[in-house]
Amino acid sequence: MTMEDMVGVLEVPLKSTEFNRSITKRGVNLADLACLPISSGWYGTPVEENRRLIKVQCYSKEGTVNFYMKPIEGVTALVDMDRKEVLAISDNGQNIPVANGINTDYRYSIQKLNGELRLLNPISLEQPKGPSFTIEGHLVKWANWEFHLRPDPRAGTIISQAKVRDPDTSKLRSVMYKGFTSELFVPYMDPTEGWYFKTYMDAGEYGFGLQAMPLDPLNDCPRNAYYMDGVFASSDGTPYLQPNMICIFESYAGDIAWRHAECPITDLKVTEVRPKVTLVVRMAAAVANYDYIVDWEFQTDGLIRAKVGLSGILMVKGTTNENMDQVPNQEYLYGTLLSENIIGVIHDHFITYYLDMDVDGSDNSFVKVNIKKQETSRGESPRKSYLKAVKKVAKTEKDAQIRLQLYEPSEFHVVNPLKKTRVGNPVGYKLVPGATAASLLDPEDPPQKRAAFTNNQLWVTPYNKSEQWAGGLFVYQSKGDDTLQVWSNRDRPIENKDIVLWYTIGFHHIPCQEDYPIMPTVSSSFDLKPANFFERNPILGVPPNFEDDLPVCKARDSA
Amino acid sequence: MTMEDMVGVLEVPLKSTEFNRSITKRGVNLADLACLPISSGWYGTPVEENRRLIKVQCYSKEGTVNFYMKPIEGVTALVDMDRKEVLAISDNGQNIPVANGINTDYRYSIQKLNGELRLLNPISLEQPKGPSFTIEGHLVKWANWEFHLRPDPRAGTIISQAKVRDPDTSKLRSVMYKGFTSELFVPYMDPTEGWYFKTYMDAGEYGFGLQAMPLDPLNDCPRNAYYMDGVFASSDGTPYLQPNMICIFESYAGDIAWRHAECPITDLKVTEVRPKVTLVVRMAAAVANYDYIVDWEFQTDGLIRAKVGLSGILMVKGTTNENMDQVPNQEYLYGTLLSENIIGVIHDHFITYYLDMDVDGSDNSFVKVNIKKQETSRGESPRKSYLKAVKKVAKTEKDAQIRLQLYEPSEFHVVNPLKKTRVGNPVGYKLVPGATAASLLDPEDPPQKRAAFTNNQLWVTPYNKSEQWAGGLFVYQSKGDDTLQVWSNRDRPIENKDIVLWYTIGFHHIPCQEDYPIMPTVSSSFDLKPANFFERNPILGVPPNFEDDLPVCKARDSA
Repeated sequence: MTMEDMVGVLEVPLKSTEFNRSITKRGVNLADLACLPISSGWYGTPVEENRRLIKVQCYSKEGTVNFYMKPIEGVTALVDMDRKEVLAISDNGQNIPVANGINTDYRYSIQKLNGELRLLNPISLEQPKGPSFTIEGHLVKWANWEFHLRPDPRAGTIISQAKVRDPDTSKLRSVMYKGFTSELFVPYMDPTEGWYFKTYMDAGEYGFGLQAMPLDPLNDCPRNAYYMDGVFASSDGTPYLQPNMICIFESYAGDIAWRHAECPITDLKVTEVRPKVTLVVRMAAAVANYDYIVDWEFQTDGLIRAKVGLSGILMVKGTTNENMDQVPNQEYLYGTLLSENIIGVIHDHFITYYLDMDVDGSDNSFVKVNIKKQETSRGESPRKSYLKAVKKVAKTEKDAQIRLQLYEPSEFHVVNPLKKTRVGNPVGYKLVPGATAASLLDPEDPPQKRAAFTNNQLWVTPYNKSEQWAGGLFVYQSKGDDTLQVWSNRDRPIENKDIVLWYTIGFHHIPCQEDYPIMPTVSSSFDLKPANFFERNPILGVPPNFEDDLPVCKARDSA
Repeated sequence: MTMEDMVGVLEVPLKSTEFNRSITKRGVNLADLACLPISSGWYGTPVEENRRLIKVQCYSKEGTVNFYMKPIEGVTALVDMDRKEVLAISDNGQNIPVANGINTDYRYSIQKLNGELRLLNPISLEQPKGPSFTIEGHLVKWANWEFHLRPDPRAGTIISQAKVRDPDTSKLRSVMYKGFTSELFVPYMDPTEGWYFKTYMDAGEYGFGLQAMPLDPLNDCPRNAYYMDGVFASSDGTPYLQPNMICIFESYAGDIAWRHAECPITDLKVTEVRPKVTLVVRMAAAVANYDYIVDWEFQTDGLIRAKVGLSGILMVKGTTNENMDQVPNQEYLYGTLLSENIIGVIHDHFITYYLDMDVDGSDNSFVKVNIKKQETSRGESPRKSYLKAVKKVAKTEKDAQIRLQLYEPSEFHVVNPLKKTRVGNPVGYKLVPGATAASLLDPEDPPQKRAAFTNNQLWVTPYNKSEQWAGGLFVYQSKGDDTLQVWSNRDRPIENKDIVLWYTIGFHHIPCQEDYPIMPTVSSSFDLKPANFFERNPILGVPPNFEDDLPVCKARDSA
């Protein structure tokens, strides 16, 4: 969908007297309507064929900008996106009240009136000698890293040709040819009429980059940030600017890059500590209610962290219930009662990354290093068992369809089989998962078929220029016949080839009252980490902080 | 062991001519020896009865302070700790060369000579109006939090009586009565003679707090940190000071506490973003070679994050191999060849936390919220499946012996069954695991029996003042008869009681060359997160950053 598609359908339901009657019957003034274009998915019914469909549901913005907390529950318009015609109105007829929206407006201007809650003295990241990075066009150079950075309407942020300098040779070495968020999948866990189709694929349906609004300086990114604009095409081809779409900044949280202190046992007086400073590339996409904060973080030790933060506003459901006391024991709400007449519906988030690794060259192999228990033989040792690392090179795609298991752990290495370190280890990077969640939906459920790229957490495919979007090139109303699962099932050879890793970060979200009326950020991440890529710790020579290098600061009002 | 025990045994092997002969035979000058006191574990042999045993292994510090990289492989002295006598010398007789140690000294003074690698302009966390916390004795007050903070010789840092202020009532509400790192378990994965016993339990054997050396200002903690001393007793009862053992600071990494931006779809011009500032309490314990960075991080949204960073120096093994070419295909090294003659041996780290939760009072229940697939019935929905949250209150301890599973996910809530929110949800906090690893050793292996608290990731016990140390009160040479597993197997009632959660963060560590000669920090964490504890997002009223509040800074040399 283009932005024009999305905006253009919102007025369409109002052409229907049936729709207007359903709205006014619920006590909502038509002038207070705020409507959302909701991708309709695909469920194999005749109406879905040869049409671009969209569903429109509306909210009341009476008394709050946070209209999401005032759903007009049970009214859905099915619209032909191209003909801008209503095909059907669904009205459950139930008299579910629209929540009152009291205290849901989260704007500072409103809170201030309610009594501002200043908890903290100001704190700031300061760099009096300026940032340590340069940006020429889209080429970013920072510390030992160089990479290209590009805003993209579908993926959001694209990192390409990421290279790191080897301190032993002073040469730049390739790590990743291209990395980006290829697709998202956000299924809501309510099978009822007004909700079953809410199974968003935000990149392919809405455009993850198109929804990345300008960042708020000093708040979305710290004071020392640099901003990059996006330039996109409107549906008629006219270029337009998305200002401040991406920010780039150095971050220092007080963390430690490496340390060691000798203790009295060894009688050596040594304490050596190096602070950890990183470079963050950030975008924040607000796909209607939800906000995704997408970070790529580069460390001087060669690690790249891909991190997603979830904030914004819940998609909630109207209910007649005002208190859990009113809910019969046997009734299941599909979520949590967050406030009177408001249920936060359970949902998942999956963010699938495309990672075309080029470790010291384009031809790489994927090695699963399985960590397994080895029993000792009788008399071998006072120990009965130990853990053994067993390496297995994946020959074909099916060897690399991986579900993570705590009790069958593995490391996941991408190695260059033709390059070795001085002592003979294959040069590599490993993908290190963070906390994640798996899709548990039935694999034959239409939404799961379309989002079959979430069937595993990790996949490896041979590079193919037509395989960049995990849910397929055309995702809107897709049937699941062009997904990563379909490609991977061809089981092509992947050893010593230009390979692409696909990794999915997942979240199960059971809403809680703290998510109301706007959600504190929840994050997860994964790392790409050098593993026998360098001969040794590449930041051994980095100096510690010295007082004389640090800035001299004062409060503005003391100036 | 006391510090005096550890230091007192190091000279003992030198009384043995057999030991000295083994050392000099390997070309090491006795004056260059650096020796370590290695807890001997328990393996059920007669020599272990009625004695305090320790093993001593030595390294050469010739040419480097990083003697850990120069092991004298294959020589172990078994010492009676009290009588300070050698009981046995084990010498494998093999002529494994001592590694040359070239480029292993990590001190800045040495690196500087080799050509300093300045990558970055200075960056600093600045707070011109001072910190936002106060510390009176051991009571810390910051933002909406109050808690006690105490250095402890065994646990390191103890947080107690953590309370958070409710913005709706302005009242302090109890969250956690006491939290600390109860025990560690660090088994090495090499069953051979000189290695099988390396299965450290750092808190109970060495004292996690005793090993927490003074923090390095500006590097271990940022410039805005406050430091707290520890006061401990020597073995003869004399008190002594451990200066700067803990630091407390506010951290801001440029992250976002919450945000939402409206997009053109809804035609509202709203962008509201709040920066995330946290309070960090940090200790760094160097248990001989390894450094553990232990953080407790408090967020204004009510979340507490417990985080462990691993840095320091690997425990390595000498080898005759200088290159993987020399290693026959069938030979297994128990680790990674890191440099000529140096193997980084595979090992695990487990850090087990004691978490006496008091959510709005001392009597709480543990609720497992299982997230499971629900198939729809025929005709119910176009969807075939959705996920359903099924709550189950744990009645007894065995209901709460939990192994994490990606494909059988749950949330883990501690609720106060007698307190409800306005809309009727039980008031609670949830434990949110981060990335972790499980122990895969044989449950009957002696080290695993002693560290049986790692048999599950999560446990819940009723409070009992004698059950604070997960491996038992007396861990040194323990036999595993006083562990969390033993207590939990009594299967006591835990519903609506003063309950203690036990959570273990685990790491599998297959060393790589980047870990040589000193390791970049690797971290993991878990969160204690409010879940229907507050009526709504408790930081709705916090203001954004304004330019006028931020400091005016300049570089010192431009002054």
